[in-house]
Order: sequence, then structure tokens, then C-alpha cells
Amino acid sequence: MDKKYSASLLIIGNEILSGRTQDTNTQWIGKKLAERGIHLVEVRVVPDIEDEIVFAVNALRKKASYLFTTGGIGPTHDDITTESVAKAIGVPVVMSEDARLALLSHYKREEDLTPARLKMAQIPEGAVLVPNPVSGAPGYRIENVYVMAGVPLIMQSMLDHILPELSEDAPILSNTVTCDLPESAIAMQLAEIQKEYPMIEIGSYPHFRAGELGLSVVLRSTNNLALHEATQKVVLCLESLGGKAQAVSIQSKI
Amino acid sequence: MDKKYSASLLIIGNEILSGRTQDTNTQWIGKKLAERGIHLVEVRVVPDIEDEIVFAVNALRKKASYLFTTGGIGPTHDDITTESVAKAIGVPVVMSEDARLALLSHYKREEDLTPARLKMAQIPEGAVLVPNPVSGAPGYRIENVYVMAGVPLIMQSMLDHILPELSEDAPILSNTVTCDLPESAIAMQLAEIQKEYPMIEIGSYPHFRAGELGLSVVLRSTNNLALHEATQKVVLCLESLGGKAQAVSIQSKI
Repeated sequence: MDKKYSASLLIIGNEILSGRTQDTNTQWIGKKLAERGIHLVEVRVVPDIEDEIVFAVNALRKKASYLFTTGGIGPTHDDITTESVAKAIGVPVVMSEDARLALLSHYKREEDLTPARLKMAQIPEGAVLVPNPVSGAPGYRIENVYVMAGVPLIMQSMLDHILPELSEDAPILSNTVTCDLPESAIAMQLAEIQKEYPMIEIGSYPHFRAGELGLSVVLRSTNNLALHEATQKVVLCLESLGGKAQAVSIQSKI
Repeated sequence: MDKKYSASLLIIGNEILSGRTQDTNTQWIGKKLAERGIHLVEVRVVPDIEDEIVFAVNALRKKASYLFTTGGIGPTHDDITTESVAKAIGVPVVMSEDARLALLSHYKREEDLTPARLKMAQIPEGAVLVPNPVSGAPGYRIENVYVMAGVPLIMQSMLDHILPELSEDAPILSNTVTCDLPESAIAMQLAEIQKEYPMIEIGSYPHFRAGELGLSVVLRSTNNLALHEATQKVVLCLESLGGKAQAVSIQSKI
């Protein structure tokens, strides 16, 4: 599949690795980016350790048009994303007057801007703020790195603000065909269709629902016409193999 | 925190990156490993592209005592985990008679072992099988790399088989204290407690529940006594700050 714009995602937080918290930000971000034609090409989850964050930021920001990070921008000792991102980029962390004013507008009184809260107004030098309408403390962009909160509700509001400023390509459309055949019954024919349509990403995913093994064939592309054609071929192929094919969630319309 | 045994996880699959599928394997694996005292230190999600998988396998297997992979071991064209892992390790892919027999026992008849299905009996040379009681096609271990299916139910049954053969350390215990204070109100005091107990991993996680901002302080350690002490200090600290502290999910007992 043609990949004009790409993104990587770095999830920062011990709570995801320990299994305490179920990450849902990956799915949300992956979907929102696909709508803008931006492919999520890699995700990493690392602990709250500076060296690990610095290494991952530098690997992932080189790998894609954009790097998004989530988590670690709060006021506590384990929130070390800002220092780590600044170190990776090679700039100092400075107090941002705009970020301080954003916090003041949230907390209302000067005396409520305690040292812990003011930590959230410190950002890498040269960073541009991303507003946080939920809890005041802003995210920011520096170079191609977007630093966002980890709490899903806050991350989502930050992403809504960021999306319009990203480069846009034709949206990645996705068609899904389910059937009652086992994966192994369709493998050869599916590989043939994939060969015929290299601009389409074809995946097959077995699943259990209510104890029954089923199969979803997912086709993704920015090319509407080719996607429509290939989807029809998949449906015919599944039916010719004796399967009950059901086209669900079809985004390509011609 | 003392980290005697560690693990990394590689999730292979376009469906996670596109947002089509919500990954739940990370949380499951993170929890199961913690019970055995094994720390999950990094997770990566990569697409079904050989070079990406080879690179990630080699980075992650060097980084931890064990590397687990999920996804990409089925019969279709997008299942390229085995070739990629073999390439990363530097061994050929060979037909495994034991794997063939496992498939035969699942599919019953020799004539049902189609070329697509026999693909699932091909494993890296020297790999040791991990049985798949759900759908026949086995996982395997080669060196310190455990290759598992991506479908959660199958992954879980494979992991149950693998866990007893992993090195075991004291389980990582976890205590959680929730309160109604904002994170910024407790940041300084929590940092002090963290300094006093370097063997304990202390994290603080704000959350919204029913529209109310709340806070969970999570303490993790293999040292039961220190964990118990530090948790009591956190509770006292939160109460001294005027918070309503509630100790929930306490694993450390003395």
C-alpha cells in the first residue's frame, strides 16, 4: 500500500507494561490517523525510565512523518516525558509563559500554581503548545514529535486539536468480509488476490464468537476503485469455496 | 525495583496498528509474568513486513530474558512470523514432524493436511513446540524467543503451557490506594516516599470515573515488608493532605 504519510506512537508508562491499565490509545489513534490517510507504522510501550524514553523517541521520530507520545506529562516524580523528549531532541526544558497562563486559567488563582503544578508549564525550548481543555496542563509539539497526555479523555481532546494541522492524504478505506470458512481453506486464493492487487493490504483474522470459529478478511487501501474490485473478488472466491460470505463494514463505494 | 528476570513482547499485525483490533494480549501477558516475578520491560507493535519483524526480534530478544511474540503464525499470505523469526535467529525453516502430527491429530485425515495447513508445521530449525489445544497449529520456542498465536484464547492457552518453564522470582506484589486529591497536591510528598523506598515502583494515575477526577497511587515491589510500610506511609500522607484515602487491591500482607 502506498504510504505517503506515516506516524509512530510511543506509549510511556509502567502501568501499561504491568498490566494494571489496558491501553486503548493505540486503537483510537490508529483509527483517527487512518481517516486522514496517515499510516501508523510502529508502536512502542516503554517504562518511566529516561534512557528508554530518549532511545525510543529518537528511533521513532526518524521512522515516520510524525511521532506521537502519550503519558508522563503530569506533576509527579514518575512524569519524566518532558525532560526525556527535550534530551532526545537536544534542547533545554524552559518555563513557558503561555503554559503558565493556561494553568492559571484552569486553577484560577496565582497561589494555586504550586511548584508541582508549575512543573507542567515547563516544556522543551521551542515547543508549540497543544491545549488541554480537560485539565489545564498542555501538551505540545516539538519538531515532528507531538507530546500528549495518557488519560484517554485528555489525549483525545489533544488529538482533535492536532489532527487538522497534520498533512492529509486520501483516507485509508477498509472493507471487511466475514465468512464461516477456516483460514487454511482460503489461504491460496487470498494470496493470488493479494498478488493481483499490491496496492491493497489484505489481512485475514480468525476469531471466536460464541464458541464458533469465524474469519474476517480485511482489505485496506486509499484506492477506492481497486478496493471495491478486490473486495468483490474476495466475496466470489469465498462463495466458490462453499463459504457463506458476508460483506460487512464496506467503506469503498463506486 | 530489582529486576532479575525480564521479558519483552512483540505484537505482529497490521490489524492492531490500523485500529481494527483492540490489543488485549499485552495486559494479559504483563499480569501473568508479574505473578512469576518477571518484568515486562518493552512492547512493540509492528506490521506484517519481514524487515520490520526481523529488526524488532533482534532488538527485543537481546533486551530481556525472554521475548514473546504474538500473531502471524497462521496459514495465509500475511502470516510471515516464522520466516522472519528464523531469519532473525539465522536458521532455516524446516518441516517439523511433531508439528505435522499435531495438525493431523487436529484435522484427523491425511488428505486434510493441505499445503496451506502444512505451512503451519514449518518452524525454525531447532525450535521446540508449544502445543495449541484450541486450533492445532503449534507455537514454539527458539533460543529465548517464544512464538505464540495472536488470537487471545489461543495465546492464553499457549502461555499457560510456557509459564511453568520460565525462571521464577518472588512475585511482583502491587498495592493500590485511591483518593480524591488532585495529583499535583501530592506530588512532592510522593516523591519523598519514592526516594525513601527505591526498591518500590511508585506511580500515580489520575482517572475520570462518572465525571469525577480521582487518583490511584500504585506501589509495586517483590519486597513484601517494604511494600507494606510504604503503602501505609502513602495512606497517612494522603490523609494528612486532607484526602479521603482508600486502600484497595492490597497484595502485601505481613
